[in-house]
Amino acid sequence: MSTSSVTAFAPASVGNVAVGFDILGHALSGIGDRVRVTFSPESGVRIRPIEGLPVDLPLEPENNTAGRAVLDLLEQLGITAGLELTIDKGIPLASGLGGSAASAVAAVVASNALLDLNLSAHELYPFALAGEAIASGSAHGDNIAPQLLGGLVLVAGEDLISLPVPEGLTAVAVHPHCQVATAQARQKLREPFPLDVITAQSTNLARVLAGCYQNDIGLLAQGLNDHMIEPRRATLIPGFVDVKQAALNAGALGAAISGAGPTVCAWFDGDERTQFAANAMQQAFQQAGLDSDVVISAVNCTAAHIEQVD
Amino acid sequence: MSTSSVTAFAPASVGNVAVGFDILGHALSGIGDRVRVTFSPESGVRIRPIEGLPVDLPLEPENNTAGRAVLDLLEQLGITAGLELTIDKGIPLASGLGGSAASAVAAVVASNALLDLNLSAHELYPFALAGEAIASGSAHGDNIAPQLLGGLVLVAGEDLISLPVPEGLTAVAVHPHCQVATAQARQKLREPFPLDVITAQSTNLARVLAGCYQNDIGLLAQGLNDHMIEPRRATLIPGFVDVKQAALNAGALGAAISGAGPTVCAWFDGDERTQFAANAMQQAFQQAGLDSDVVISAVNCTAAHIEQVD
Repeated sequence: MSTSSVTAFAPASVGNVAVGFDILGHALSGIGDRVRVTFSPESGVRIRPIEGLPVDLPLEPENNTAGRAVLDLLEQLGITAGLELTIDKGIPLASGLGGSAASAVAAVVASNALLDLNLSAHELYPFALAGEAIASGSAHGDNIAPQLLGGLVLVAGEDLISLPVPEGLTAVAVHPHCQVATAQARQKLREPFPLDVITAQSTNLARVLAGCYQNDIGLLAQGLNDHMIEPRRATLIPGFVDVKQAALNAGALGAAISGAGPTVCAWFDGDERTQFAANAMQQAFQQAGLDSDVVISAVNCTAAHIEQVD
Repeated sequence: MSTSSVTAFAPASVGNVAVGFDILGHALSGIGDRVRVTFSPESGVRIRPIEGLPVDLPLEPENNTAGRAVLDLLEQLGITAGLELTIDKGIPLASGLGGSAASAVAAVVASNALLDLNLSAHELYPFALAGEAIASGSAHGDNIAPQLLGGLVLVAGEDLISLPVPEGLTAVAVHPHCQVATAQARQKLREPFPLDVITAQSTNLARVLAGCYQNDIGLLAQGLNDHMIEPRRATLIPGFVDVKQAALNAGALGAAISGAGPTVCAWFDGDERTQFAANAMQQAFQQAGLDSDVVISAVNCTAAHIEQVD
């Protein structure tokens, strides 16, 4: 009996990683979107009502990140199959955890298996990226790439470069129950930046990269400090300054806005202090009037993958 | 008989390396400054008339890069010796080849040996940096660091990180006979930069770093393209566009302004085409009315060192 449906899981992710605006991201285990792709007698792509978290997402495939990604895959490869997508949202919308990217990634990973295409993660990347661009208004791969490849990834144009991750590097991502619209967060970045700020940020990006390649946690920690984006966006996140300080007080190597926020991510050498830090960060959000969820994950965690074949 | 004088050589260097403004630099063999440091019965630092290239440099030690560096070393370490410096300039002033840095580096390297201090290159760095700041008006170590350590160096605050250099990487530095004042070149950078330009530059910096660590010449070549500084400064260098194009036509991985210019540096995979490229770059400068000199050097070349002990 041939396969009639495939379900794939794509993890959440942390975009920017403090100092790699639009070019650095890492995956997060334990939270993600699932997409089930089923053959359908009618050609083209259809999207069933969204499952999982209550979200208001477009169901027209060309306006939906998962739908757009699969449409692109079918069109580019000249495939005329009929596919039905069932999206099970595990990542809240506009959370800064790469939710729109994850739906697109899970959809192309499942379609790749169902259609027996044997495309690599690198080959799937442009399709997922085209899907994500629908939601964010621009094509930037710092969520798509780590979701497809796992771990920490540098996006250099079309090159996706998996970075070596120091053993034990752990992320604590705290998602407050408020939303930051990506478009609003991007507007904060319209005014240009002075050279001294850019140089400080470039230095930190270089520290993060060299810290990874040289397995130097001290250098990495020095680099995990956002001089450029955070001063513009921090005010969009109630309690940000206190949440960041709570993470640093708990021994974080650094802490920063994940993607466009409002999630705040802190990084730790090992996992001994992560639960304590998560509690302290949640308390700080609580004092700003916000409930929150926590994800604690190895930075070097697994990529999107097939969960079920029927 | 005890040592009465030490002569050290410091190589020229290429600052910025296209995309690492103020934080990346590499040394150049075959051209540099020499400083002879001699014990003198009078305490303090004195500077003898400059030798070598005809230059108009201050001889008061506190206003001279070499003098200031040695004064700093003596003051910080509480040493009361009397020292006389003889500076032999091999690097033209305001050439973009790190001339002011090289005098400071050679002076501290020679003083370190003469005073038998056994300081490491990293320990000598802040003294040389203080000297160079006199000339350039700001303390940036992208010339000092590679001159002290050799090869390609990332300057991350007080950390000097020697980067692995792909074997055979060769620099062709062409110095046209005109001057660009560092202060004037810096003024071009006063206006802030838009985010898309910064992101393009950061991506290229990341490519250069990853290309070095992964020994990937293709990635390195993609990175050696300055989106940020060159568009502002190119007009300060007559013929720049044609010189760069001549280098690329000759097979350069990339070409960019060295430091604040006017020297243009191009990088090559191996040395087969370097002489041809140098000729083409010189011809392009000639068409802009400028004579020029050429230095061809391995990027991974040697550091400042002692040449003579008397």
